[in-house]
Amino acid sequence: MVKGRVRRRPEGQENKKMPTGEIEVCAESLEVLNTSRKLPFEMKEFVKKSEALRMQYRYLDLRSPRMQYNLRLRSQMVMKMREYLCNLHGFVDVETPTLFKRTPGGAKEFVVPSGDPGKFYSLPQSPQQFKQLLMVAGIDRYFQLARCYRDEGSKPDRQPEFTQVDIEISFVDQAGVMSLIEGLVHYSWPEDKGQIHVPFPSMTYEEAMRDYGVDKPDTRFGMKLVDVTTAFQGTQIEFIKDALLKPSGCIQAICIPEGMKHLKGKDLEFLKQAAKTQYGQEVSVAPVRADGSLKSPLSRLLSDRAKQQLLQMAQANAGDLIFITAGPRENVRPLLGKLRLQCAELLESYGVPVRDPSVFHFLWVVDFPLFLPKEDNPEMLEAAHHPFTAPVPEDAHLLYTQPRKVRGQHYDLVLNGCEVGGGSIRIHNASQQLYVLDTILKEDTSLLSHLLEALDSGAPPHGGIALGLDRLLSIIVGAPSIRDVIAFPKSFRGHDLMSRAPDFVSEEDLKPYHISVVWPNTDIEGHQHNSV
Amino acid sequence: MVKGRVRRRPEGQENKKMPTGEIEVCAESLEVLNTSRKLPFEMKEFVKKSEALRMQYRYLDLRSPRMQYNLRLRSQMVMKMREYLCNLHGFVDVETPTLFKRTPGGAKEFVVPSGDPGKFYSLPQSPQQFKQLLMVAGIDRYFQLARCYRDEGSKPDRQPEFTQVDIEISFVDQAGVMSLIEGLVHYSWPEDKGQIHVPFPSMTYEEAMRDYGVDKPDTRFGMKLVDVTTAFQGTQIEFIKDALLKPSGCIQAICIPEGMKHLKGKDLEFLKQAAKTQYGQEVSVAPVRADGSLKSPLSRLLSDRAKQQLLQMAQANAGDLIFITAGPRENVRPLLGKLRLQCAELLESYGVPVRDPSVFHFLWVVDFPLFLPKEDNPEMLEAAHHPFTAPVPEDAHLLYTQPRKVRGQHYDLVLNGCEVGGGSIRIHNASQQLYVLDTILKEDTSLLSHLLEALDSGAPPHGGIALGLDRLLSIIVGAPSIRDVIAFPKSFRGHDLMSRAPDFVSEEDLKPYHISVVWPNTDIEGHQHNSV
Repeated sequence: MVKGRVRRRPEGQENKKMPTGEIEVCAESLEVLNTSRKLPFEMKEFVKKSEALRMQYRYLDLRSPRMQYNLRLRSQMVMKMREYLCNLHGFVDVETPTLFKRTPGGAKEFVVPSGDPGKFYSLPQSPQQFKQLLMVAGIDRYFQLARCYRDEGSKPDRQPEFTQVDIEISFVDQAGVMSLIEGLVHYSWPEDKGQIHVPFPSMTYEEAMRDYGVDKPDTRFGMKLVDVTTAFQGTQIEFIKDALLKPSGCIQAICIPEGMKHLKGKDLEFLKQAAKTQYGQEVSVAPVRADGSLKSPLSRLLSDRAKQQLLQMAQANAGDLIFITAGPRENVRPLLGKLRLQCAELLESYGVPVRDPSVFHFLWVVDFPLFLPKEDNPEMLEAAHHPFTAPVPEDAHLLYTQPRKVRGQHYDLVLNGCEVGGGSIRIHNASQQLYVLDTILKEDTSLLSHLLEALDSGAPPHGGIALGLDRLLSIIVGAPSIRDVIAFPKSFRGHDLMSRAPDFVSEEDLKPYHISVVWPNTDIEGHQHNSV
Repeated sequence: MVKGRVRRRPEGQENKKMPTGEIEVCAESLEVLNTSRKLPFEMKEFVKKSEALRMQYRYLDLRSPRMQYNLRLRSQMVMKMREYLCNLHGFVDVETPTLFKRTPGGAKEFVVPSGDPGKFYSLPQSPQQFKQLLMVAGIDRYFQLARCYRDEGSKPDRQPEFTQVDIEISFVDQAGVMSLIEGLVHYSWPEDKGQIHVPFPSMTYEEAMRDYGVDKPDTRFGMKLVDVTTAFQGTQIEFIKDALLKPSGCIQAICIPEGMKHLKGKDLEFLKQAAKTQYGQEVSVAPVRADGSLKSPLSRLLSDRAKQQLLQMAQANAGDLIFITAGPRENVRPLLGKLRLQCAELLESYGVPVRDPSVFHFLWVVDFPLFLPKEDNPEMLEAAHHPFTAPVPEDAHLLYTQPRKVRGQHYDLVLNGCEVGGGSIRIHNASQQLYVLDTILKEDTSLLSHLLEALDSGAPPHGGIALGLDRLLSIIVGAPSIRDVIAFPKSFRGHDLMSRAPDFVSEEDLKPYHISVVWPNTDIEGHQHNSV
């Protein structure tokens, strides 16, 4: 602690690089308030530290200008969001419990043992039920910065606890929620990140899958999927003929501009191999020579007219690379969608600018299917998002006849190819909700009887959304991981490397909760216990 | 949903009692958006419902004007607090983890099993460690509306999860924290609750115990404790002589104005009995007759001068009641403090106004002892509040010689006799912190090694406070319970009566967490399992 008088620095001694570089303090007294031991790393931005070391000494890592910026920006953005919702739009900030009950299908919910033998609370993945109950309760505009929990084991860049901007509104439609969120993002957008424009563009799920092969397209660059089936009409190429005979069989392509110049042979091999292992699909690469001919075994199997048509449809020019694959649409699209992103990453790794990191492309994706076939049993249906999503009104009658054809009033907010939010108009009619849960999804409705009863108490029509705050912020600040916008994150294995949580707990401390540890390999139980 | 034109009501049909009573809608179309089954209770304020019924149908209970007011006021007050801290005082809102590690002595912490066999997270009782780490991390003004957890079993009017306004500041002293909080409460105070005045009065712990027999005095009324030992000097009354011979023996009294008129014989019996069972102390009741004489067996054992002195010291007049008790000060004070509150409640139950419910008396209590003797082993010391509290500077040297005499830089905020906040200046010197943990408190310091290392990394002097938001709000709105300011509270046994949490979880679902249930009375294990 220095006490003294502030004065202008002597001429020539100013430091323009420092915010306070024009002044100095003429010290009159000095007191050492605390000392510092030798630190585990230097407090300089340019000193590269391993992530494990950063996490172990997080209180030092947070001193870096980058982390200070991230945490302070987070606080400011959240404050602006609250002002927008509370002060400008009359929302009520309501805290909902995190010690709740297991939800149907809540396999990823942490359990919390209670003092009642065999009974557990559950840490909810979202306040979904509570926000809907609040609509029944007459809190017609609810929001909360909600702490949510999800036990996903070891997934990269996921956190066991995360925060969502949780919103629910009575007497609202899809357009109403979307324009509220556009206003919210616009109002809270950091000044130093440039202008964003509202309304955000919108795209149907079908369009997103068709053009980008994914339901969260990165629209900052082209290289869209093209259906080139007609170019191959009447082809004699055996494997293509076979593919076209199957239901929803098609031939699709993406074109990488100047791909011949930038992508190396080993890149192409890697991409083809990835397609084979991840999707079980063959991908052909057809570079376009300077004379417009295709450098591919396909070339001699195709008529000139077909080749011409292919180049035209793919908008391919000399020097470009065309990736072509044939098969059922539901395989081909995600494969090419993935390939498109992999090519962008590869090109960027060679210094070719594909996506401008200072540009923010928001996008709504709408008209999702309401149900999807279960992966392990395609005869059964599961909710594409959650079982409370209302059908698109003109599809509602299909619920009872062709549920697979029903679109849901669900909307995702996508930013630069990442899903940063999702919501829906909910079912507010108890009998429709019961039909979906019971008849279509075959769920045990007793677990949701309170929600069904609540809907049956005169629930208003309602809908809402949840924004993933950590993800949104990490994209805005350009952080490689959501860990960089969270003060004290867990490692990808769910560990706190600073305090060493989770940790062993004595059998004595577990007694009040009527649980005991089941050690794996009970034959070495003694050894395991020793490590406690 | 009614569509139509709004118009003024015909003359004579206005309803002044309704906010919209001067207008009506001339309906052009009507659509039934939803229907309602027969509700379990009428939606009228005057219909008395049991608390269990209110909790089971919380979504209906919340429709009441009172609950709507409470939840909306809560949202508004919290928003004002955020504006004050974030926008006016440059605080940074930082979210800290709730999946943490067990803290030393954290017997009331819920455990959360992790995927690592035998390892558990703990739900923290407060972000104490994180807020101090943030000070080391250069977030010099931190705040958070923090969700906290405490497993207290079945305590009335406690909740397993609650919210605190959590604040920590670097380079601050006790006066700095106190004036910030006064500003915060003043700024966020609801307009319809009248004016409050800052700064709040302040009282030492010693003064509070001396005058009110409690460390959170309700200063809305008098009836203070009076030490009347000198009136009994040289007494021949055996039990009083005995009491005075013991260390810190004293005679103390409280005077209940007009107590003779209001308190009945059975009330006095009840109070004396309570004193005996709860404190093991005899209490004498001495009513003051119209002629100024005492209607008590004590009367004939006391000289006239002594009686005169007693009346004068107790400021007792004709018709008053004096409660007198003799014994060690540490027994007598809490006993009379409790008696004082019980008398106030009894008088109020008879319609005698003692405490004005529309008046808000804030009070700081300061200069607490830093350590207290352990209840089960008075040779050992425990932290009066927590082990991170710094000593009052002029007492710091006593840490090493007479730790029992050290006062802490701790401050409690009291409102109408309830503790609504508490904080302290923290120890920022690692070796002093180690000395307190290791030498004085005999704690296992390995559990706090990360905090000690952090202090040793150049921690700035810092301090802070936490306000109990639920309690504060319940007093402001005059609610009988904190459950009335929480949207979805648990019952006093920790149950959610609406969703029936906590609930049984299948052994299958517990497997990933390597735990199993230990059923009480294993001889009826089979039966117990059936109930799952």
